[in-house]
Amino acid sequence: MKRKMIAALLFIGLMLSGASGFAAERTPIKVPDILGYQTLKCDFHMHSVFSDGNVWPTVRVDEAWVEGLDAISLTDHIEYLPHKDYVISNHDSSYEIAKRAGDQNNILVIKGSEVTRSMPPGHLNAIFITNSSRLDGKDWREALEIAHEQGGFIFWNHPCWTGQQPDGIGRWYEEHSEILDKGLLQGIEVVNSGSYCPQAHQWAIEKNLTMLANSDIHPPIHSRYDIAGGEHRPITLVFSRDRSIEGIEEALRARRTALLNGDVVIGREDFLKAIFEESIEIVFPSVTVVVDGSAYVQIRNKSDIDFHLVSGNGETDLRVAETLTISGGKTALLRISGNEGTKAGRRSVPVSYNVENMWTAPEQSLSVTLNIDVNFENRADPGTER
Amino acid sequence: MKRKMIAALLFIGLMLSGASGFAAERTPIKVPDILGYQTLKCDFHMHSVFSDGNVWPTVRVDEAWVEGLDAISLTDHIEYLPHKDYVISNHDSSYEIAKRAGDQNNILVIKGSEVTRSMPPGHLNAIFITNSSRLDGKDWREALEIAHEQGGFIFWNHPCWTGQQPDGIGRWYEEHSEILDKGLLQGIEVVNSGSYCPQAHQWAIEKNLTMLANSDIHPPIHSRYDIAGGEHRPITLVFSRDRSIEGIEEALRARRTALLNGDVVIGREDFLKAIFEESIEIVFPSVTVVVDGSAYVQIRNKSDIDFHLVSGNGETDLRVAETLTISGGKTALLRISGNEGTKAGRRSVPVSYNVENMWTAPEQSLSVTLNIDVNFENRADPGTER
Amino acid sequence: MKRKMIAALLFIGLMLSGASGFAAERTPIKVPDILGYQTLKCDFHMHSVFSDGNVWPTVRVDEAWVEGLDAISLTDHIEYLPHKDYVISNHDSSYEIAKRAGDQNNILVIKGSEVTRSMPPGHLNAIFITNSSRLDGKDWREALEIAHEQGGFIFWNHPCWTGQQPDGIGRWYEEHSEILDKGLLQGIEVVNSGSYCPQAHQWAIEKNLTMLANSDIHPPIHSRYDIAGGEHRPITLVFSRDRSIEGIEEALRARRTALLNGDVVIGREDFLKAIFEESIEIVFPSVTVVVDGSAYVQIRNKSDIDFHLVSGNGETDLRVAETLTISGGKTALLRISGNEGTKAGRRSVPVSYNVENMWTAPEQSLSVTLNIDVNFENRADPGTER
Amino acid sequence: MKRKMIAALLFIGLMLSGASGFAAERTPIKVPDILGYQTLKCDFHMHSVFSDGNVWPTVRVDEAWVEGLDAISLTDHIEYLPHKDYVISNHDSSYEIAKRAGDQNNILVIKGSEVTRSMPPGHLNAIFITNSSRLDGKDWREALEIAHEQGGFIFWNHPCWTGQQPDGIGRWYEEHSEILDKGLLQGIEVVNSGSYCPQAHQWAIEKNLTMLANSDIHPPIHSRYDIAGGEHRPITLVFSRDRSIEGIEEALRARRTALLNGDVVIGREDFLKAIFEESIEIVFPSVTVVVDGSAYVQIRNKSDIDFHLVSGNGETDLRVAETLTISGGKTALLRISGNEGTKAGRRSVPVSYNVENMWTAPEQSLSVTLNIDVNFENRADPGTER
Repeated sequence: MKRKMIAALLFIGLMLSGASGFAAERTPIKVPDILGYQTLKCDFHMHSVFSDGNVWPTVRVDEAWVEGLDAISLTDHIEYLPHKDYVISNHDSSYEIAKRAGDQNNILVIKGSEVTRSMPPGHLNAIFITNSSRLDGKDWREALEIAHEQGGFIFWNHPCWTGQQPDGIGRWYEEHSEILDKGLLQGIEVVNSGSYCPQAHQWAIEKNLTMLANSDIHPPIHSRYDIAGGEHRPITLVFSRDRSIEGIEEALRARRTALLNGDVVIGREDFLKAIFEESIEIVFPSVTVVVDGSAYVQIRNKSDIDFHLVSGNGETDLRVAETLTISGGKTALLRISGNEGTKAGRRSVPVSYNVENMWTAPEQSLSVTLNIDVNFENRADPGTER
Repeated sequence: MKRKMIAALLFIGLMLSGASGFAAERTPIKVPDILGYQTLKCDFHMHSVFSDGNVWPTVRVDEAWVEGLDAISLTDHIEYLPHKDYVISNHDSSYEIAKRAGDQNNILVIKGSEVTRSMPPGHLNAIFITNSSRLDGKDWREALEIAHEQGGFIFWNHPCWTGQQPDGIGRWYEEHSEILDKGLLQGIEVVNSGSYCPQAHQWAIEKNLTMLANSDIHPPIHSRYDIAGGEHRPITLVFSRDRSIEGIEEALRARRTALLNGDVVIGREDFLKAIFEESIEIVFPSVTVVVDGSAYVQIRNKSDIDFHLVSGNGETDLRVAETLTISGGKTALLRISGNEGTKAGRRSVPVSYNVENMWTAPEQSLSVTLNIDVNFENRADPGTER
Repeated sequence: MKRKMIAALLFIGLMLSGASGFAAERTPIKVPDILGYQTLKCDFHMHSVFSDGNVWPTVRVDEAWVEGLDAISLTDHIEYLPHKDYVISNHDSSYEIAKRAGDQNNILVIKGSEVTRSMPPGHLNAIFITNSSRLDGKDWREALEIAHEQGGFIFWNHPCWTGQQPDGIGRWYEEHSEILDKGLLQGIEVVNSGSYCPQAHQWAIEKNLTMLANSDIHPPIHSRYDIAGGEHRPITLVFSRDRSIEGIEEALRARRTALLNGDVVIGREDFLKAIFEESIEIVFPSVTVVVDGSAYVQIRNKSDIDFHLVSGNGETDLRVAETLTISGGKTALLRISGNEGTKAGRRSVPVSYNVENMWTAPEQSLSVTLNIDVNFENRADPGTER
Repeated sequence: MKRKMIAALLFIGLMLSGASGFAAERTPIKVPDILGYQTLKCDFHMHSVFSDGNVWPTVRVDEAWVEGLDAISLTDHIEYLPHKDYVISNHDSSYEIAKRAGDQNNILVIKGSEVTRSMPPGHLNAIFITNSSRLDGKDWREALEIAHEQGGFIFWNHPCWTGQQPDGIGRWYEEHSEILDKGLLQGIEVVNSGSYCPQAHQWAIEKNLTMLANSDIHPPIHSRYDIAGGEHRPITLVFSRDRSIEGIEEALRARRTALLNGDVVIGREDFLKAIFEESIEIVFPSVTVVVDGSAYVQIRNKSDIDFHLVSGNGETDLRVAETLTISGGKTALLRISGNEGTKAGRRSVPVSYNVENMWTAPEQSLSVTLNIDVNFENRADPGTER
């Protein structure tokens, strides 16, 4: 009888589990709000069946919702339409279809298109425009002018793309100076579909361009990134006054962005420092270290970003680990030891680290200081059998 | 200097990792070949943008390759075309596009269409047909006749679908008897998009219909199943003489299928028994049990299917665990103990179990026997401090 | 040259990755603080090599830190010492060793012991005692008296344990009434090592005993629970005025606990309701529903607990999903639809659900109400192509 | 009524799931047998509470079984006994306790001890010895002589260990030449607890020492390696005539080992080449490439080892991907393209790669050749819309 009951319960359990499938769930991305702004997670470059993408526009909205994004722009090519024998190519359709879906689940959908030419000037996205069809069939200079008149924010896509630069090195052409001078270029993709372009990073700094990281995704997003396993597409973090399309536009024009590419965060020092400081918390503020002994500081990371620290050159009373990873959502243990000459007493000790995965410029990582409140005692280290 | 080197290496490592993304990899599904046939993994029901699906037809081919399938059929609706304002509805296009992609990566693409009517007769798929457009605009009886004349294999989709049966209970109508008698119905979906229909299971047994388990997927497959995490869509296992479309057709007409729905396997007893027996291996064939003591049998599962066993009523010399799960790809430990009256000596002991997740009929699970070679010894149990 | 560089980088990357191993990280468990109390995560029953466990006492502290616990008690058996040929059995050693380790990483270690007898009275834990050795060799009544005099909090372990109740049903004996009347019994394990005992749950309610959920772990914790994959041992949630041993003792004596066993939360209705309400947040407070149409409410779960909702019987203006899972850390979509008779206008609609995995008594789940601010509009549903 | 049923089923499902815990399952490690030998997975260096480890000896046996190992040696220190106030230090106890457990689940337990001295000569393990206690209290030269007389196989542990070489660089001392010349040194740890020692690798090659990779694990194995997530400790692969202790000893003395350290495989070229070739299978042996067009070769990896390939310098008719990862258990796609000068016709084309994670010497990776049967056709590339 007991066996039968177990069997029946297993049968029911299996029926239920077989029927379940995979629920539509959104996983919020934890990056702290900073400096009084809301940190919005955005992707301004992607495709649908209306150009050379492989999904219906609503899929991009559903994918964004599941992944935890706030805003997207479908930027189908104006000039490259490989599905045109099957799909009627009205350049405004993909936005209209996506917009209705976005209204249902609160994903902000921004109208955009990709102006697609050989290099120079290469490919450029115009977003916040009002009518994409009017850009069709024009000379590229004219197309950018029309986009600009419509209120477009224009950025240069993937300057390092091997499809246009076989050696993977970005080059700045006269044409780019021309459009920059005319006010037809506001931003640049420092990261496209996971590839970092150091030249674009440098130009963004020198020429005051807004930095962007976009997916440029063509197939379903899950076929490139293990979203269910916690992986993310490249994301532009926009520091916005509110969660609105207007807020995003104002922030983009004011260059208030940072980029998230896997574990790497790219952007201005003040933004990166604020992200780090709002993410990190020393759990038990005060630790006691026996002079010559060691103790553990617990450091909690409230964000989803893993921070990889390498010790800087500031010499202190303390010896600390040379490298420390504080994984997203975790608490790490930092072992600290007193030096031989250390004096007894309680004081705040600054410990310097470079955060190797936060890049303020090419090959330049963020410096941070952890201030640790330590009480040095003059007694024997009790040790532990551990 | 050492610090700088660590930093440089971390920088390089992060650049590489940031650039990587998610490789296109196929994970073969391990279900053993049985009874001289090759076990092909198939899905005969899915949609693309050419009816109410949300992906380009090539996506279905790529998804099938990644998930480890052998054959698929895109069965876009003939009569339901919600994207028709944007997508030109030639009923043969989705097959043609998918076929070219399948030829590149060895996925077998079978031509099919869904004849879509209210209940009765509901929705029916016709596969192995040659021209879908000829079914358009016809009375459903006529459409099925045309499909039949084209060599179509016709099956009834999701008889328990709450969209047509709000209480979720499948009902057999006169119309189904009519098409069955006319030879216009060869198969039935016992599982559709993860839902098991017990009525369909019973009818398949009684009326000699081929059992099918299909995804009926509309959005990207990864949005419903965690493929990267090892989850699968419902799959029809086809026991085929070879890996070819002709082989699959012959097997379907001969009703040589079993169904995989999450952890549940559904089908004829001889197929399920063969799957179980080809999957399971007793690792160290002979074990020694002290009379009154206990020992462990190691059972390896070479398939990807988890087997959930509940002990049957065969009384033996041995006491064994009441329940045992032998997970896919793992080796499980079965604890066996001698009874008090057990006689010393070596012999093969049959141990009876029901495999609760292998269903030969509604609420009927497969009985199996494990033959364990045991050597009962008359000595004190050495035991263990564990 | 380029090939060589790729090779060199891969070499370096592999050296680094090969060297890394698995960092010591703590994953905080997210269960909200409630009713002005701090929610501490505790396990008051476990073993070390000093009785029949298989790990050194410090391992229990490290395991607790990694898993996100606040407090533990090592409760080695007084009377069952299978390792006594190898380990010197001073009943106070495991506490002393663990305490030094806990002081290093801020895990609260509570002194305890397990008084181990056949049923009745079975096994009882005494925690907050001061000297375990004094309990050794005494009659069980006397041992409990001594523990009580030392300030011990005494609870009955695993009343349903098949080792003492082969049918798995808990039984209350005269001896339990006796110790309850004498003030020698304050709590009871409703959950032990993952097994729920409904009789213990009922007695806790009727006899005003503190409910406990403990691991009773003997081997390393990771060999029973996939901690790295997010699984947890059974945990007693203690609602304490602060994070201190004194706070925990006060809370236990005041019966301020709830139990976490996998996905199931067990406890008094006021505690469970507070946990649910502090965990759940409606993300966009106001939704617009076309009369006859549908809309989506986004519900965020800030805790780590999955909530499984089944709709209650409150009839409203809205039709809502019959079942809804709001997974820990995720945002779920609740689809709501207007009924035919719905009047236009904006109002707050209460939606009733039972949270099937929050148990206030055996087979009794928590009722909750979600108040949704809805604006019913009298216009055509725009729908979506999705 | 339906709601109540759903609730009841969920309740039952949760009770079952709550009760389950984590089954004891073994995951076989897939590394192919090679050159007529069985590939055994071994770890010859680990600790228990009987020296400075933190687990009972049986835990090491259970861990090995779960992880898929065949043989282990518990090598507690002779001279370092930090638990000696609590644990009675008979140097033979840990073997005896582990051996009984190993007999129950077919893990081969090899008797061993660690002779523990400052550098030189540092720490040395002696395995296959018969009496560890006899080594206690002796001069290290004498201890090694006794171990040798007992039939011991002696190897030098972690020559790069920062505990004895603060700069992490291994140094060969006169003492090592002395014991090598006397026949008291047969092997060397090239990998210890995840750290690769390039000096040890070089010495093993030059001085004909058996290479070893061991865990040197002190705490529970799961606290250092995410075993449930598929991670492994460092493993010595032993190519043995059979699965027996005698077979392992013969193979070790004949230097038939390779090392597995995360994704890296280290060893003699003939062993690594055989592992690669037995692991890899071209799924559809023949591919057709249009001259100037491209096609895909499917390469299946039957082992658990990820292979990271970087293209070598052999020039061929084909252009192939510069890098290719063939993950363990997966099938990868290799894109091949014809060159402009390619002649039509069918032939076998050798494609050269270096396997960057298979190391035959420090900074020297394995060269392999994939022979691909290609049919070059002189027709237009059909392409694909993908």
